[in-house]
This record gives sequence, C-alpha cells and structure tokens, in this order.
Amino acid sequence: MEEMKSPIEESKIEGRNAVLEAFRAGKTIDKVYILDGCQDGPVRTIVREAKKHDTILNFVSKERLDQLSETGKHQGVIAVAAAYHYAEVEDLLERAAQKGEPPFLILLDNIEDPHNLGAIIRTANLAGAHGVIIPKRRAAGLTPTVAKASAGAINYTPVAKVTNLSNTIKELKEAGMWFVCADMGGTDMYDLNLTGPIGLVIGNEGDGVSKLVKEQCDMIASIPMKGDIDSLNASVATGVLAYEIVRQRLGK
Amino acid sequence: MEEMKSPIEESKIEGRNAVLEAFRAGKTIDKVYILDGCQDGPVRTIVREAKKHDTILNFVSKERLDQLSETGKHQGVIAVAAAYHYAEVEDLLERAAQKGEPPFLILLDNIEDPHNLGAIIRTANLAGAHGVIIPKRRAAGLTPTVAKASAGAINYTPVAKVTNLSNTIKELKEAGMWFVCADMGGTDMYDLNLTGPIGLVIGNEGDGVSKLVKEQCDMIASIPMKGDIDSLNASVATGVLAYEIVRQRLGK
Repeated sequence: MEEMKSPIEESKIEGRNAVLEAFRAGKTIDKVYILDGCQDGPVRTIVREAKKHDTILNFVSKERLDQLSETGKHQGVIAVAAAYHYAEVEDLLERAAQKGEPPFLILLDNIEDPHNLGAIIRTANLAGAHGVIIPKRRAAGLTPTVAKASAGAINYTPVAKVTNLSNTIKELKEAGMWFVCADMGGTDMYDLNLTGPIGLVIGNEGDGVSKLVKEQCDMIASIPMKGDIDSLNASVATGVLAYEIVRQRLGK
Repeated sequence: MEEMKSPIEESKIEGRNAVLEAFRAGKTIDKVYILDGCQDGPVRTIVREAKKHDTILNFVSKERLDQLSETGKHQGVIAVAAAYHYAEVEDLLERAAQKGEPPFLILLDNIEDPHNLGAIIRTANLAGAHGVIIPKRRAAGLTPTVAKASAGAINYTPVAKVTNLSNTIKELKEAGMWFVCADMGGTDMYDLNLTGPIGLVIGNEGDGVSKLVKEQCDMIASIPMKGDIDSLNASVATGVLAYEIVRQRLGK
C-alpha cells in the first residue's frame, strides 16, 4: 500500500462571531468545543445551530480550550471544520504508472448525492481504479458525508476536480485513453472491449450523461435491463460497470 | 408486464388527537390535510410535527376535507399514512414459474439502511430477480424512504418477510434451489457456476452474513478486491453479484 497524503485536514474557527458566521455561511462544521457552563445569548445560538446541523458538541474546561486554541482568542468557542484536498488529474495517471497498470479512471458527470459520491469512491478503490474525476460546478464535492459514505476510501483513492469535464476527456484521449459512458441504448457492456487505458463516465442521477460529454466518449455501454423501471442507482451502476472492467482486465 | 397488486395502500387517520397520536407513536405520515385558516393549539402542534417529519402539508377547504373523510368526523385534520403489503415466498417462486425462468431471489440478512434496501429492490427489478426476502426482525422494512430509494421498483418486485431466514433457505434448498452468499475469503465469483435456480444472500452492512445463514449456503462468492479498504457498500455489492448472475445466465 503506497503512502499518500491524507486528503482531510482540520481547520479551526475560533470566537463566537466567527463560528456563528461559519454556520450561517453553510460551512460544514464537524465539532464545536464550548466552555462548560457558558450560557449567554451567542453561545446558546451556536448550540442551537450545532444541534440543527448534527454537529458534535463538546463542553470543555477553559484549560482544554486554551490548549486547542491557535489564536489565543477563542472567547469560549472553537469549531473544527474539515477541509478536503483534491488531487490533480496528473496525480491519477502517475498512480497508474507507479503500479505499472493501464490507467483506469472514473469520471462523474454531475453526481449530486453525497452518499452516491462516497459509495463510488469506495467502489473505485476496491475495483482498482486509479482515481475519480468530478466537475467543479453543479456536483457534490468532498464533504464529511462523502468521507463517511466512502468508508475510508477517500484516504486512498484520489479525487480530482476539473473545470470542464469534456475538455478533460479530450485531453486524456489525446494522451491515449479511451472513454466509455454508461447510457441506455448503447452496446451491451459484455460486448465491448473495456481493457486498456480506460475512463468510465457516469452521468447525473436524474439526467444521465450530458450531451457534450457523451460526444467525447468512444463507446456507450449499457447494462442489460430485465425489469420494469428505467435505471439503476448511480452508485450501483458504477459498481456493475467498474466490475465488468475488472472482469475483462482479469481475463475471466 | 404482468399485473400485480400494488404493495402500497393508503390509510387515513382522522381527527386532531388521532393524528397527533400517530405522529407521537412514530407512525410514518405522508401527507396531512388541514382546514385552511384553522390556527388553534392542537392544529399548530400538528403543523409543527408535520414540518419536523418533512410531511407534506395541504391547507384545504371544508368541502375538500368532507370529501376525503371516511368517518365524517375529521375535525379539520386528515392524515394519510402509507401501508405496505408483503408478498409470500410462494408468490416469488410463482413469478419465476410464470416467466418460465429458474427462480432468482435476493435474500437480505439484516440490511439496516433503508436507502440500501431501496437500491437493492431497484437492482433486483432490473437484474430480473423474482423477488427479495427480508427477515422480520432487526432489519429495515418497507417504508416511504425505501419506496423512494427503489425508484418505483417496489411496485413491481415483491418483497417477502420471513421469521427465520436460515429456515427459509433450508426449505427452499429442499425445493431444489441453490444458495450463494457474499463474503470475503470465498471463491472468486467468476469461478462459480451461478446459473440455475439461485438465491443470492447479502449480509448486514457492518457484520456481513450471520453464521447460521452462512452455514446453510452452498457457495461463498467473493468479489475481487483490489483496493485498500474492506468492503463495498451493501447495495453496490448486491449489484455486482446480481449482474454476475445475469452475465452467466445470458451465457456471456
């Protein structure tokens, strides 16, 4: 198992106004430390916000707060927020090179549900993909919910965030990769050659793969559908397709 | 597509106390109809409870309430709760027989997360399984969250609830079915013969398949794991294994 810089880093927010402001700005706070016995208005507002957001509350002594404080000006309140680091696309290719394997990447065209994103990073890890690429806008990013749903995979499988997914695909194609997107009406996945350097593209939960991204793909793969409804859950579909790639790579 | 009795039936709860009682008992209420303009204490409590549980609120006229009422004594409040019907194990086998296919069932050994249960019913539908079997105790049952996560599959794929999963497996084995459970340290799934009348057994999210159930299984299938963490999400693992069964059944 190679060494990797942890993608998760804690950042501290200190002082009543700063912490309240962070909650109001929608920042994800993991934990709040509050001076035990402190009951004034702003502190009560922070406690209420924390409960509303399922944030862990710790009532601690002044000594503990002083110890945790980086600024020395905590005013009885310190919040801990998680910050996630993204990898670069080059890092993902570098991982494949280091393992001596043809690159296997999973690209997500606007996955919105953090549980799906987490489950997909988990799948990417176990299927031996070298990383996940997500777009900067209109998609779930790395949050504590995603980290939890990834069951720790976020610590091993790098996630890169790009401005324009179809441009990234274009560039990677020029570098020799092939792209397959999951969609209805494509070729049965068992009948495609999915070995070699490959990017698996999964679309949005409701809308599927966008037109611009689909146009860049070399192949459209369909999972055989024998039922009455339209489509699998996005993370299940990713699992089924990723493991078809695994099967073909294993020559089974 | 065969006709099937919808597993979902609405039941009405009428009157302020009955509706409040239902909320307090933890019953799942989908919708509440309230007489428009009604603002007294009990009604405000009901509105608060409804908001807390994300229940849809409809403020309607007295005429509309009278029309909806089954008792004629709605007191300005009618709640609509969903009730789900379970199938019998025999119904699942009957479905297979009607389609002229060897039975393909998915058995869940204590799946706890309703999103996983919903995604698994969705997968069962699309992979052509004839039904899902869940245990009566210590497991997620059919709820509106499950119905939503199933993306409508709950209307097509029957779910049976049994008292003792390992006894049910025993009985189905006597009737000629084979059972494969998903676990680490088993045979690589590609190297097993998964055609024929088969039951796929998926274990609990944290604990896997229980000892008693595993002892009843004819085969243990493992998904190849090429990563750093332990296991796939339960609904993703179900998808990967169910589609290995589909692949083998298709002779691909």
